Amino acid sequence: MRAMEKKTTDYSKYVSELTRAARRAALRMLSTSIDEKNRALEAVASALGTSTDFLKSENRKDLDAARAAGLARSMIDRLTLDDKTIAGIVTAVREIARLEDPVGRIDKEWTTAAGLHIQKVRQPIGVIVVIYESRPNVTVDAGALCLKSGNAVILRGGKEAFHSNQALGKVMDEALRKAAIDPAVIQVVNTTDRAAVGEILKRTGEIDLVVPRGGKELIQRVVTESHIPVVKHYEGICHIYIDEECDAALAEKVTVNAKVQRPAICNAVETLLVHKSCAENVLERVLEALKSRSVELRGDDRVRRRFPWVKPAAEQDWFTEYLDLILSVKIVDTLDEAIEHINHYGSKHTDAIITTNEEHARRFCEEVDSAAVLVNCSTRLHDGGVFGMGAEIGISTDKLHARGPMGLEELTIYKYVVRGTGQIRE
Amino acid sequence: MRAMEKKTTDYSKYVSELTRAARRAALRMLSTSIDEKNRALEAVASALGTSTDFLKSENRKDLDAARAAGLARSMIDRLTLDDKTIAGIVTAVREIARLEDPVGRIDKEWTTAAGLHIQKVRQPIGVIVVIYESRPNVTVDAGALCLKSGNAVILRGGKEAFHSNQALGKVMDEALRKAAIDPAVIQVVNTTDRAAVGEILKRTGEIDLVVPRGGKELIQRVVTESHIPVVKHYEGICHIYIDEECDAALAEKVTVNAKVQRPAICNAVETLLVHKSCAENVLERVLEALKSRSVELRGDDRVRRRFPWVKPAAEQDWFTEYLDLILSVKIVDTLDEAIEHINHYGSKHTDAIITTNEEHARRFCEEVDSAAVLVNCSTRLHDGGVFGMGAEIGISTDKLHARGPMGLEELTIYKYVVRGTGQIRE
Repeated sequence: MRAMEKKTTDYSKYVSELTRAARRAALRMLSTSIDEKNRALEAVASALGTSTDFLKSENRKDLDAARAAGLARSMIDRLTLDDKTIAGIVTAVREIARLEDPVGRIDKEWTTAAGLHIQKVRQPIGVIVVIYESRPNVTVDAGALCLKSGNAVILRGGKEAFHSNQALGKVMDEALRKAAIDPAVIQVVNTTDRAAVGEILKRTGEIDLVVPRGGKELIQRVVTESHIPVVKHYEGICHIYIDEECDAALAEKVTVNAKVQRPAICNAVETLLVHKSCAENVLERVLEALKSRSVELRGDDRVRRRFPWVKPAAEQDWFTEYLDLILSVKIVDTLDEAIEHINHYGSKHTDAIITTNEEHARRFCEEVDSAAVLVNCSTRLHDGGVFGMGAEIGISTDKLHARGPMGLEELTIYKYVVRGTGQIRE
Repeated sequence: MRAMEKKTTDYSKYVSELTRAARRAALRMLSTSIDEKNRALEAVASALGTSTDFLKSENRKDLDAARAAGLARSMIDRLTLDDKTIAGIVTAVREIARLEDPVGRIDKEWTTAAGLHIQKVRQPIGVIVVIYESRPNVTVDAGALCLKSGNAVILRGGKEAFHSNQALGKVMDEALRKAAIDPAVIQVVNTTDRAAVGEILKRTGEIDLVVPRGGKELIQRVVTESHIPVVKHYEGICHIYIDEECDAALAEKVTVNAKVQRPAICNAVETLLVHKSCAENVLERVLEALKSRSVELRGDDRVRRRFPWVKPAAEQDWFTEYLDLILSVKIVDTLDEAIEHINHYGSKHTDAIITTNEEHARRFCEEVDSAAVLVNCSTRLHDGGVFGMGAEIGISTDKLHARGPMGLEELTIYKYVVRGTGQIRE
C-alpha cells in the first residue's frame, strides 16, 4: 500500500514537471519565428540522420523483447528501425519543414461600421498529449508536426517501442537544444506505466488537447478517464455503395483495392452495399474478384440466394470493423436505403459511392454524414498524405474541431485580434 | 426508493425519445435547402409575433414565482417577456434568417496529382444540447441559430424561466410543423429536474455537442459528468494593460467603459495592469475616474504606495472574476511582465492593450494567449453582435473548435467530398 502511494506521488511530480515545462515551451513558441522552427526541424532531421547506429542499437532492445514475447511478424516489422525506415523518418521531418506555416495565417479580416479592424488569426493550440501504439516513427512525425505548428507535445508511445522512442526523443532533445529551441516542445514520457497515463489524463487545464491514436480500448480509456478535450480517432466502418448506374470494371477495381490493399487500416472497406439492379452481373464480378483474393464474404439473405457460397451475415456484422480480409455484403432497393444504412451502421469515417449518375453522387455526398465521402475512388485514399496535406497525426472521427486527416492546420485554433481607436460599448 | 427508480426510468425513455427524434431531424436537415430553412425561420418569427398574449401570460407564471421567491430585481428584468422583448426576439430570428448560410460552403478545394478533386465542405454538427440559465430569449436565439446551421437542438433552460421556455417552444414547434420542417430540430426539454440533465449527459454518441451556458458550477458539472464533447463558456478574467506609450484620455475612457458599462458580463475588465512609467499621471487619472463611478479598487503594494486610499489586493484577487464594480490594479515594469501576468492569471477570454507603440501592440497580440486580444478599445467589444457575426450562443474560452463568439459558422464542421475516376491506393 505504501509503495503504491509512493509511486503515485512520484508520477504526480513527474507529470507536473512535464506539463509545466510544456506550457513554458508553448508560450515561448508564440514568439518563435517560422524560420527558427524550420531550422529546428532541419536540425532534428540532420541529427536523426547521423544517429542511425545509436537508434538501431536501441531499437534492437525492443526487437529482442518483441521476439522473446512472440509478437507477430507484422508487429515486429512495424517496430523495426533500419537504415531505410530511419531515412524515411528523416525525409518526413524535412517535408514537414517545407509545408506552409499555418500559424499567423489570417482566416478572415474585416472592419466593422464602428471602425474596429478584426482579424481571425491562426494560433497554436498549446500543450498537446499524443498517446499511441507500436510504430516509433509516430514519435518523430507527431513531434515535428507539433513543433512546426507551435505546440508543445508530450508523447507517450507503446511499451513495445519504449527504447526506440526514448532514443528518438533523446536525439530530438539534443538537436533542439543546439538549435536554441526549448527542448520541452517535444517531450517523450520516460515510462510506459499505465498509472503515468492516468496521472496525465487528470491534468485538465494544464493540457489543452489529448490525441489518442490506437485501438478502441485506448480511446475509450482516455474519454472515460479524462475531462481534457480529446480529438478521437475511432474505428472506420467504411462502406462502398455500388449504384444502379455504374461502371462495372471501376466498381471491381475500387472495391478490391479498398478491401485487400491494406485491410488492417481504418479506411479499408468493411461493408459493400449494392443496388438490386446490379445484383446479377456487377455483383457477381466484384464478389468473384474478392473471392479470388481470399476475402471472406458475409452476405444478407438476398445476396446468399444468388451466391449460396457466401456466408451469412449477422446483425452484428454491419457494426463490425473487421480490419481483416472479411467483407459484409448487402443488396439494397434504393440509394436512400444505402444512405440510411451507412448513417445507421457506419462510424462516420469514410464512405464511397460508385456511380455514373451525377445526381446520385451529389445526394450521397450531401446526405452521408461522414468525415470523407468519395465518388468513384477507393476508401483507402482518405489519408492526409494522399490529400496532399503532408504528414498527419491520424484521421479524426469527431465532429468538432478536426474531422478527417489531422495535420498542421488541424493542430491550430484561431484567436481574434481587434484594433480600435478608442471604441467603447455604448 | 421505488419512486426514485421509476423517475430515472422515465427520464431514460424520455431522453431516448428526444435524442432519437433529434437525430432523425438532423439527418433530414442534410437534404433541407437554405430556402426551406429561412422560410421556417420566418414562420417562427411570425408565429412568435402573433403569440404575444400567450407568451406574456405564460411568462407571468414565472414572474409570479420569481417575485414570491424574492428574486433580485435584475433577475426579474432578465426574465420578463413584454411587448418590447418579444419584438426583440422576433427581430433576432429575422436577422438570423438574413445571415449567410454556412452549410455547404466550400472552405478549400483542390485537385491532387492523381486527379482526385477534393472539397472541404461546411456541414452541420448534428445533435446539439444547450443548457442555459434564466433569460428566455436564449431559447429562441439558440433554436434559430441551430435550425439555420442545419443542426437539431435540445434546449434545457433554467427553472426560473420554465413556463416561458415551454411557451416559446410550443409556438416554435407549431410554426415548424406548418412550415413542413421536422419540429424535432428545436426541442425544449419539458422538465428542469437535474436528473433529466444527468440522463442527457450520459448520451455519448447520441449527442454530438453540449454547450453549457451559465455559471462556472454548471460548466463544471457538464465537464465532470459527461463524455460528450463540450464547448465551454468559462469565466472572463479580462485585463487591460496600459503601456508606457499611450493616450491617457483613451486609457481612461476605455478602462472606465470596460469596468462599469455592464460589470456582470464576462468581457468586463477585472484587472488593470499599468507600466511603471504611467504610474503617476495616467494611473491617477484612470483611478480617479473609476473611483468617481463607485468602483472598488484593490491594488498591489506599488499602487498603494502612490494611492494609499486603494484597498490591498491579495494573491487570490488576480484569479478572480468579480462580475461587479471591483477592479484589481497592478504596476508592472515591462510589457513582458504584463504578458506573463495575463497568461498566468487570466482565463484566455479577452485582454486589451492601450498603446501608441505599434511594436508593443504586435507583441501583445502575438504573445497573449486569449480568445480575443484588443488594441485601444474596450474589452466589452468582444461580442458576436459587435463583431458583426449576428447572434451568438456564447463566447467560448476553449481552444478547440470554436474560440470567442460562437455563431452560425461555429455551429458547423467540415466534411471532405472527394471525386475520382477510379483512383485506388497503390
